[in-house]
Amino acid sequence: MNFTSDNSYGAAPEIIEAMARANAGALGSYGADPYAARVEERLREIFETDLRVFLVTTGTAANALALASVSPPWGTVFCHHEAHIAEDECGAPEFFGGGLTLRHLPGDNAKIEPEALTQFITECGARGVHQTQPSALSLTNLTEKGALYSPEEVVHLSRIAHAGGCAVHLDGTRFANAVVASGETPAALSWRSGVDILCLGATKNGALAAEAVIFFDPERQADALSSFEFRRKRGGHLVSKGRMLSAQMDAWLEGDFWLNRAARSNAMGQRLAAGLRAVAGVEITNDAAANILFARLPLALHRSLRAAGVAYYLEPASQTEEGDGVGVRVRLVCSPSTSAEDVDAFLALCAQPAEVSA
Amino acid sequence: MNFTSDNSYGAAPEIIEAMARANAGALGSYGADPYAARVEERLREIFETDLRVFLVTTGTAANALALASVSPPWGTVFCHHEAHIAEDECGAPEFFGGGLTLRHLPGDNAKIEPEALTQFITECGARGVHQTQPSALSLTNLTEKGALYSPEEVVHLSRIAHAGGCAVHLDGTRFANAVVASGETPAALSWRSGVDILCLGATKNGALAAEAVIFFDPERQADALSSFEFRRKRGGHLVSKGRMLSAQMDAWLEGDFWLNRAARSNAMGQRLAAGLRAVAGVEITNDAAANILFARLPLALHRSLRAAGVAYYLEPASQTEEGDGVGVRVRLVCSPSTSAEDVDAFLALCAQPAEVSA
Amino acid sequence: MNFTSDNSYGAAPEIIEAMARANAGALGSYGADPYAARVEERLREIFETDLRVFLVTTGTAANALALASVSPPWGTVFCHHEAHIAEDECGAPEFFGGGLTLRHLPGDNAKIEPEALTQFITECGARGVHQTQPSALSLTNLTEKGALYSPEEVVHLSRIAHAGGCAVHLDGTRFANAVVASGETPAALSWRSGVDILCLGATKNGALAAEAVIFFDPERQADALSSFEFRRKRGGHLVSKGRMLSAQMDAWLEGDFWLNRAARSNAMGQRLAAGLRAVAGVEITNDAAANILFARLPLALHRSLRAAGVAYYLEPASQTEEGDGVGVRVRLVCSPSTSAEDVDAFLALCAQPAEVSA
Amino acid sequence: MNFTSDNSYGAAPEIIEAMARANAGALGSYGADPYAARVEERLREIFETDLRVFLVTTGTAANALALASVSPPWGTVFCHHEAHIAEDECGAPEFFGGGLTLRHLPGDNAKIEPEALTQFITECGARGVHQTQPSALSLTNLTEKGALYSPEEVVHLSRIAHAGGCAVHLDGTRFANAVVASGETPAALSWRSGVDILCLGATKNGALAAEAVIFFDPERQADALSSFEFRRKRGGHLVSKGRMLSAQMDAWLEGDFWLNRAARSNAMGQRLAAGLRAVAGVEITNDAAANILFARLPLALHRSLRAAGVAYYLEPASQTEEGDGVGVRVRLVCSPSTSAEDVDAFLALCAQPAEVSA
Repeated sequence: MNFTSDNSYGAAPEIIEAMARANAGALGSYGADPYAARVEERLREIFETDLRVFLVTTGTAANALALASVSPPWGTVFCHHEAHIAEDECGAPEFFGGGLTLRHLPGDNAKIEPEALTQFITECGARGVHQTQPSALSLTNLTEKGALYSPEEVVHLSRIAHAGGCAVHLDGTRFANAVVASGETPAALSWRSGVDILCLGATKNGALAAEAVIFFDPERQADALSSFEFRRKRGGHLVSKGRMLSAQMDAWLEGDFWLNRAARSNAMGQRLAAGLRAVAGVEITNDAAANILFARLPLALHRSLRAAGVAYYLEPASQTEEGDGVGVRVRLVCSPSTSAEDVDAFLALCAQPAEVSA
Repeated sequence: MNFTSDNSYGAAPEIIEAMARANAGALGSYGADPYAARVEERLREIFETDLRVFLVTTGTAANALALASVSPPWGTVFCHHEAHIAEDECGAPEFFGGGLTLRHLPGDNAKIEPEALTQFITECGARGVHQTQPSALSLTNLTEKGALYSPEEVVHLSRIAHAGGCAVHLDGTRFANAVVASGETPAALSWRSGVDILCLGATKNGALAAEAVIFFDPERQADALSSFEFRRKRGGHLVSKGRMLSAQMDAWLEGDFWLNRAARSNAMGQRLAAGLRAVAGVEITNDAAANILFARLPLALHRSLRAAGVAYYLEPASQTEEGDGVGVRVRLVCSPSTSAEDVDAFLALCAQPAEVSA
Repeated sequence: MNFTSDNSYGAAPEIIEAMARANAGALGSYGADPYAARVEERLREIFETDLRVFLVTTGTAANALALASVSPPWGTVFCHHEAHIAEDECGAPEFFGGGLTLRHLPGDNAKIEPEALTQFITECGARGVHQTQPSALSLTNLTEKGALYSPEEVVHLSRIAHAGGCAVHLDGTRFANAVVASGETPAALSWRSGVDILCLGATKNGALAAEAVIFFDPERQADALSSFEFRRKRGGHLVSKGRMLSAQMDAWLEGDFWLNRAARSNAMGQRLAAGLRAVAGVEITNDAAANILFARLPLALHRSLRAAGVAYYLEPASQTEEGDGVGVRVRLVCSPSTSAEDVDAFLALCAQPAEVSA
Repeated sequence: MNFTSDNSYGAAPEIIEAMARANAGALGSYGADPYAARVEERLREIFETDLRVFLVTTGTAANALALASVSPPWGTVFCHHEAHIAEDECGAPEFFGGGLTLRHLPGDNAKIEPEALTQFITECGARGVHQTQPSALSLTNLTEKGALYSPEEVVHLSRIAHAGGCAVHLDGTRFANAVVASGETPAALSWRSGVDILCLGATKNGALAAEAVIFFDPERQADALSSFEFRRKRGGHLVSKGRMLSAQMDAWLEGDFWLNRAARSNAMGQRLAAGLRAVAGVEITNDAAANILFARLPLALHRSLRAAGVAYYLEPASQTEEGDGVGVRVRLVCSPSTSAEDVDAFLALCAQPAEVSA
């Protein structure tokens, strides 16, 4: 049983097959292939608007390149202090952005408090050249804590951001999970709510390595688009056999494949949550809206799960395996490859933990 | 009356005279002049230890170059969220440090809480390459809020930092004020308490533009020293007629000139604080240990001071001149050029504020 | 017929099959998979020495990350003026290296003249901090002009570089072609001749997107290795489903697959060269040792090839399709997917060019 | 006798006196002082056009900040291979420019050959995102080799640059010398000939440390201006007591002080050149139009000058004091502080060199 991450499993077989099919013959390189054109077309339909898309291999590259394209080196990017860009990218936004600054904002469930955003934007840049200047708001939906922003919440934050001179970036590593969990359309959760740039992640939801950076309203964002292309190349992220990326994304977006995958991992996440709520001593500590749970497990239960070989991460990572001596805080993630059997087996272990000596 | 900053006034006449004296004839350029050698010698005596010193024109350059020399681009520098490097240098540390990250820590009076430092260092870097790594602790003494760290407090924080793999940097823009206010020796407030690099500021205390970056224990810090020299040149901070800087610093360090200057501004600050404490409705909001006061003034008093032409800054700068409609939060700084007459005139205005229509 | 580049075709079917096989089940992510370990083992056998290897998706990333790991921001990297890092990576080394400097050296066939290297290293850095300092020599073998460095030539240049304080980097995008064409061992063309870091390219020779950065003598290069890991992550080049890269490289290195592929493209290149030498008016302008030819074609021939739909690049790209009005300079590249039929059909077109109106 | 550089001497006494006068009282800091406003006014008169000016302490900072303001990180700056930005600033343009690229162009007397510029601009960027893009042409007048560009030459090069999408930057460290030597107006040698940004140096011509970065046609260059201000602050080059810089520049520009100074050093340079031409065995190797001479001295003469304590630099610096065993190549620079007596004494030594054993 592996609940470590939605990238512990390989890609969906359909994606691999699509890569194999796309492999034959000579095609234009560096993105000049027919799959790339079709991806852009598909995305225009899905998002019901004009857009431009660029493909890269990792979410870190997608986020960092996107932010660097809309923020000068003296810009401030506002994000939640638990955001992936703040905690898991080893300073990639600062690197790609020529030394830009991330400003960490508070909020429950890794959702930014609008009041804090208003205050920070107001203070940032009030003294001109002495301070870095507001340049972007970065949201994550599904959040790092597995919670959802509603369209209304995104609208609220985007308005504050735009009024303060910021572009709005959405880290959509788990955007598919958010769409499914919310029942909203992709458009409603993105540009219709004020999002300017969406990093749409496929890797955690079926692809092998494929992320789409989507610029909405491309005419208005012409400068950012041009900047992105040079940054991508010079960042080593312009893949020569571009079909590797476009074939993945093309297959992933076909039909409702991408949403169906997210529906499956969400369902497993909810099954796990429902089961855990019935386990005495276990506390679910996040607003688990989709496929990610945070929980506090009694130490004895944690030990017995480890003894049974169940894989998951401690969160925060700075804990020891003993936690605070009473309980251990953990993160449990369901992927599209997680089976109901796995979830039920996990819950069975929780219901009857084996006794394990410390 | 000008209480805006300790850099609103020009330099001490003694400093200008020293610059004029040093101006004659041909001398080695780029730091190869006899004044530079004497500055290093003076500093060794003052700090009672071996050291290496580099001179630059601004505090921003001093801090940023120092931090870049001890932090890789994927390093995290821990600082108070009100520190000059966090709030007033437009991202200079991030720029010079190749995209390093500042981590803002809490604490009253702009002093870092040791518990927060321990926690942040523990969490930072716990997941290896996914996170930026602890690289430096940056303290400021006198703090941005005009408070003092005692040697014991510096020792405590330095130990946490060193144990976590961090170098300890001290922003000493007002180090002279801290030495005088604490009654401690320069050594006790720096290397004896664990400080590895001190940016000793003369500009706010009599010089025209001169800051010394001091590396203690230079043999151990040989790599940082070498890095610093290249960074300074490539940062455009290696002045060709080096005597411009060294003559200032040489004169400033002669005898107790630098400490006497600080003693004067501290005395004015304390005179101002004592007077303000007697003014009804005025609240001093910081631990005013030296020459900097933060206060909340009744709006009517603020208006009358402005009408009388008294200069000072609102703090935070994002306030309007109306504050919150009742009171206004301000910063009042005494420089060595502030006279007792100025302070007393200010207090007289406070005692009998003129009525001013809004 | 497509002679544009060795990356116009997809991957070898064997590589795609290996990716598909490696796709099943949950594995350690970010490089902690069994394929990655086996790749390192295979490379130790192939190169007959200890080494450490990191995988990335593009040659640009490989080169830039490698150079940044051994060069400070004030370093100078010496390379041929036609090198990929100088002409085709949009400044990636400068970006990853924090603003390092490339110094372009002359030489026929894109091979660096040793005398020029000696002179440039001697002059660079002679004035201390005023100049950037020698930090790396970057060679390319097979060169951008399709020529070979012999082991003796690499030894000669490496000695000059090491004596001048430079690490030696080898851009091995077509290293397999060089090994096959020279009849030398991989070791003889790399570490035994002084190479410290080899970027071994698989993408142009059968893989979909996989490049190996190999550090020889890893104990000595411990600092560069550590730096590389942080730079890769923060550059967005640490792929989460690491098996994507390691499975490709593992299959590519199995048996003599990688060398057999190179042998095929080299053979096609030589067949093309031999045929072209017999065509009146065509001049082969490079020392075509493997699979890359540079030629000057009569304008009429060029037009008829274009009319027949043959794809290849003008070189330099700044030419128009009319060249200088008499002839056109072109680059012709054979890939492992180039067939003898394609080559022969091309030569047949050359023997009897159709008349095409301008 | 010191012929090492025009920055070996201190500032003109008039400059020091102006600094002393400007030192009294409280003034706006960070450039908000009356001297700064007057400098801008004076420059508008001198250059007969609208402009914006920013002051910094070093020529390296001026050049690097200016270039970074008009070049993206993926830009190419074209300069002569002997330019100060290429050879003497330790990579400052690359650092401030976020990893931009300098392209070294050939030409006698450190003047760029127009044909080379045309060719390089044409080739650079012909392949889109794979290459860095033309962004700026950087000229130096007076050149590093002491020669002059005429207005016609500047026009010619500027037209090529502008047509290729480049801004035109002029390193005017010795612009005053060029104005005097050419008999042209400041306007004719700058914006009227196509220069967009001029770094006007005072430090080598009487100031202690003051350089003016002048943007012509400020409305058109609004983006670069805004960028410059943030870059200057974050580069640590915004001096708090701004009068330090503005008082120097104000006094330097008063009347014809700056041109008179240049006239004096030019006159000394010509006196030296005339005298040396009469010395047997000495070869003047540059087109010595102003105050800088390059010469090849017989080894015996060089030894006797050294023995007499005459100071000058070898050029290139990589020579030993023995040169090539027959002659030594040297640079001789006259500053405004160089006296006719010094020049004549030097020439007397040349006429009758003492015999010195090797």
